[in-house]
Amino acid sequence: MAQRLIVIGGDAAGMAAASQARRRRDRGDLEIVAFERGHYTSYSACGIPYWISGLVPERDELIARDPMTFRESFDIDVRLRHEVTSIDLDRREVVARDLDRGGEVRERFDTLMYAAGAVPVRPEWARTGAGGVFGIQTLDDGAALRDWLEAEPPPRRAVVIGGGYIGVEMAEAMIQRGLSVTLVEQSEQPMSTVDPDMAELVSGAMRALGVTIRTGLTVTGLQERDGRVSAVVTADGPIPADVVVLGLGVRPNTALAAAAGLPLGPVGGIRVDRRMRVPGVPDVWAGGDCVECLHRVSGLPVHVPLGTHANKQGRVAGINIGGGYATFAGVIGTAVTKVCDLEVGRTGLRERDAAAAGFDFVSVIAESTNRAGYYPGARPMTVKLIAEKPSGRLLGAQIVGWSEAAKRIDTLAVALWNGMTVDDMTALDLGYAPPYAPVWDPVLIAARRAVDALAATGR
Amino acid sequence: MAQRLIVIGGDAAGMAAASQARRRRDRGDLEIVAFERGHYTSYSACGIPYWISGLVPERDELIARDPMTFRESFDIDVRLRHEVTSIDLDRREVVARDLDRGGEVRERFDTLMYAAGAVPVRPEWARTGAGGVFGIQTLDDGAALRDWLEAEPPPRRAVVIGGGYIGVEMAEAMIQRGLSVTLVEQSEQPMSTVDPDMAELVSGAMRALGVTIRTGLTVTGLQERDGRVSAVVTADGPIPADVVVLGLGVRPNTALAAAAGLPLGPVGGIRVDRRMRVPGVPDVWAGGDCVECLHRVSGLPVHVPLGTHANKQGRVAGINIGGGYATFAGVIGTAVTKVCDLEVGRTGLRERDAAAAGFDFVSVIAESTNRAGYYPGARPMTVKLIAEKPSGRLLGAQIVGWSEAAKRIDTLAVALWNGMTVDDMTALDLGYAPPYAPVWDPVLIAARRAVDALAATGR
Repeated sequence: MAQRLIVIGGDAAGMAAASQARRRRDRGDLEIVAFERGHYTSYSACGIPYWISGLVPERDELIARDPMTFRESFDIDVRLRHEVTSIDLDRREVVARDLDRGGEVRERFDTLMYAAGAVPVRPEWARTGAGGVFGIQTLDDGAALRDWLEAEPPPRRAVVIGGGYIGVEMAEAMIQRGLSVTLVEQSEQPMSTVDPDMAELVSGAMRALGVTIRTGLTVTGLQERDGRVSAVVTADGPIPADVVVLGLGVRPNTALAAAAGLPLGPVGGIRVDRRMRVPGVPDVWAGGDCVECLHRVSGLPVHVPLGTHANKQGRVAGINIGGGYATFAGVIGTAVTKVCDLEVGRTGLRERDAAAAGFDFVSVIAESTNRAGYYPGARPMTVKLIAEKPSGRLLGAQIVGWSEAAKRIDTLAVALWNGMTVDDMTALDLGYAPPYAPVWDPVLIAARRAVDALAATGR
Repeated sequence: MAQRLIVIGGDAAGMAAASQARRRRDRGDLEIVAFERGHYTSYSACGIPYWISGLVPERDELIARDPMTFRESFDIDVRLRHEVTSIDLDRREVVARDLDRGGEVRERFDTLMYAAGAVPVRPEWARTGAGGVFGIQTLDDGAALRDWLEAEPPPRRAVVIGGGYIGVEMAEAMIQRGLSVTLVEQSEQPMSTVDPDMAELVSGAMRALGVTIRTGLTVTGLQERDGRVSAVVTADGPIPADVVVLGLGVRPNTALAAAAGLPLGPVGGIRVDRRMRVPGVPDVWAGGDCVECLHRVSGLPVHVPLGTHANKQGRVAGINIGGGYATFAGVIGTAVTKVCDLEVGRTGLRERDAAAAGFDFVSVIAESTNRAGYYPGARPMTVKLIAEKPSGRLLGAQIVGWSEAAKRIDTLAVALWNGMTVDDMTALDLGYAPPYAPVWDPVLIAARRAVDALAATGR
């Protein structure tokens, strides 16, 4: 008799695991049932801001693989609009509620893949039920926001709360739709995923785009009129709003897992081993935005909810469930984003992370250009490096620039991944031609600067 | 009394060495005299095609630092239009001819930096003296070609001989100036710096641009009329030409060095050690297009005339001359170029190099896109990887694509530099956001493909 794999969560990690398991074990050997609470499988949540802005015209473009494909090509029993409400590890079964038709189903499993994703952070004040307040986590969230923006009369004033990636991207999307936009950030600066000196460049670009940035400001509530949001209340007074977008971050969706007794780690995600197995719980695997994983530089557990990790982790789990061998090697915190034409990349530790992890370090900033200075379209590029003292080992890097800047972070990410020192990095053989780089690539210039800074400390 | 450094060659390697030596030793300690045969110092030869095309409007934009800067800011005695004609290692002196005013100067040295660059390959038939035949090595070459193109009546038909980087870039430049262009290549394909399957993509782009490509064709002579070139003669008959551009490659400029007894290596360049010292010859250093250096993957000596290496090697020599310690770590063959909007990058070994070096390997090609498929402006990108069998160690990589493709080779170059296996590469934490990459970056997709190919061999 076939064994049975139950997958909880039909997005990147869950469906990657299911597909990989299927590649190695056919239906006669392994039945696969995937429960997904929403209306879609495997879509690009990261693409939602571009759908809202209109840059991506159709919602369906964000869907990588639809349920039909999984059913027909992978023989995976995908059940949409089914929310798993309990896991019984002893009886090896789950209970799921049919959200559309009501009622419950109970399904046994031999193997469980927990990939329930993340839930958006929602303070008490955000739970008013007032119209015009939106998170941006699911395609349904996006659809609701688009409908609101297209109603008559259209909203004019948007307030985005939270200046992380989603907040910044959504502020830009709202500007592109013609709204006046205020970004409210609790800390000193938006885009705190990079150090303040680099984040200031991003703030400048957002202001140039027309975004009003209010920093150091805590939101305490929402005002509403006739069931619709009318203002965001802050310590500094109300900010009028016809639409409010919440970009307050997410946390691992672990309620169900915790209730079932799966172990959580120090940063609140499900604990997994290198193979994405939940330690101490036989035949239970997890991956994606619900787990925490190892930061290779700090050595500490981190929660980094990104589609790229979810896909890798799901693939690793699926290969292992399928009888193969794969491990997830951890993350180094690489991320890229875009604010109008300003590109931002980061990898490794920021200064504050390096200090918190106990490293002694130098940091340098090098100004350069993306192309040879004389080549048309040459634009400024700022590269920041953080290097351990006295070893010179690269600990982190950040890039802000106007064109072909963001993905240059990958060059630094691979150097960091391999534990290179900035000394060794000055020797790297990187591509040079006038349309692509000055004769000393910005990465090399920054590495040289870091070597000089280390020398100046006497090491 | 101050010691004296003589630098032969005032371009990238020579002037980088001079500047670095000066940073560490002031005039009272070290006099520096640099002889340069041409009219300029430290210019971007790689930029000449873009000046010819008109993309870079002014010649002076290609000059990184002029002689005045070296004289005033670095206290370096730069002597332009001075050609060194002999080196006497026993008497520690050089003789230089003043090319403009005639006469010779004789200068003693304690330390010598040989940075005479490369000389273009010129078959007998190319030395006719006919008007309208141009190499593209120096700014003077470029100026002469520009004058020819701007004469009345303007030339209409260009023949570019040789399909390497310069040939391909010059063919494009001629098209952009409105000429009809034929590219003649002796081998089966232009752009043989990448494997034939990848080069075919480049040929396609060139044809789409309007370039006529003639391959497998050997040039045997030039026809001229009234002292001007009128056709290129080949085994297949003459090809009419009003202007001929020679892109036949370069070889190390070693005549003077060899006459003085400096040791040459197996690929014809001056031999140097890790510190850019000429072995066995006290206080003589060399760098740039005249030397050969170590290929870190094959372990063999190679001659790679590129400004980026010349700058690094000059800097290393200068630091050592200045009393510091630096080494040149070798090259891995990274290069990038552009044909209209098609971008090409390569690093490491091609299939033929890997075979010649004795490696057993697999090679894979992965088709992907530069951005998330749904993001506007997503364009195809082709990544080829060559991986050792059975170890999986990356040996080489090539990328061809339409946008933000070329510099992605740096990601692979750093992986190669660090000896990564394709297995390990599948785990790399690279930047993901819809404007910059699909959720599986093209580099990761290619690495996965290579792992599959290795598995299929049973390793």
